[in-house]
Amino acid sequence: MNDCLFCRIVAKQIPSEGVYEDEQVYAFLDINPQATGHCQVIPKEHYPWVWDVPTIGAYMEAAQKVANAQRKAFGTEMIVSRIIGDEVPHAHIWLIPQRHTKNADLKMEAVAKAIRESL
Amino acid sequence: MNDCLFCRIVAKQIPSEGVYEDEQVYAFLDINPQATGHCQVIPKEHYPWVWDVPTIGAYMEAAQKVANAQRKAFGTEMIVSRIIGDEVPHAHIWLIPQRHTKNADLKMEAVAKAIRESL
Repeated sequence: MNDCLFCRIVAKQIPSEGVYEDEQVYAFLDINPQATGHCQVIPKEHYPWVWDVPTIGAYMEAAQKVANAQRKAFGTEMIVSRIIGDEVPHAHIWLIPQRHTKNADLKMEAVAKAIRESL
Repeated sequence: MNDCLFCRIVAKQIPSEGVYEDEQVYAFLDINPQATGHCQVIPKEHYPWVWDVPTIGAYMEAAQKVANAQRKAFGTEMIVSRIIGDEVPHAHIWLIPQRHTKNADLKMEAVAKAIRESL
């Protein structure tokens, strides 16, 4: 959908700091992170809500890969996730690392690199 | 694990108002609901965090079934989910219906029935 922010991010019409990508899923850093390493995990295809995604299993497996990379990158076990959904009408899962024991002060580009290298 | 609250709920040693069950997953009403129909979705096997569950895809497919039943039961599209995890060290996903257009005032037993009948 041309007027959907996340579809435009998937299409690279809007730049983002990607951390993970496969055929169905794209994950990138939130530009207003609630904590260092806060990621958005979205399906490439447009669905309004997470509960509408027919391949939710594969979608969540991708989210798990990102969460486990965040755990390594920030030295923590605790990755909080929120599925809310009314801010952007394209399914998205927030993954927000908590209790960082390392890399808490990195800047965006280095944060993305730390996560990618931990995948 | 004998000292795990959620393992004891799975084993029916502690009563709960169940809404969904399959081989791997059990879902039941939260006893301190943040909104009518607030469910906990847990794997039957003990894992400390959601990100540790090896069958996370099937786990999330079960959560999707419950979320879509909640949507029908309460006449809403919006089911908020939170994965936090440090209150009980057994993986759990919260599913919290928002913007109910029906059944918002039901009591626990009737809430569980409304969800089960919408599966």
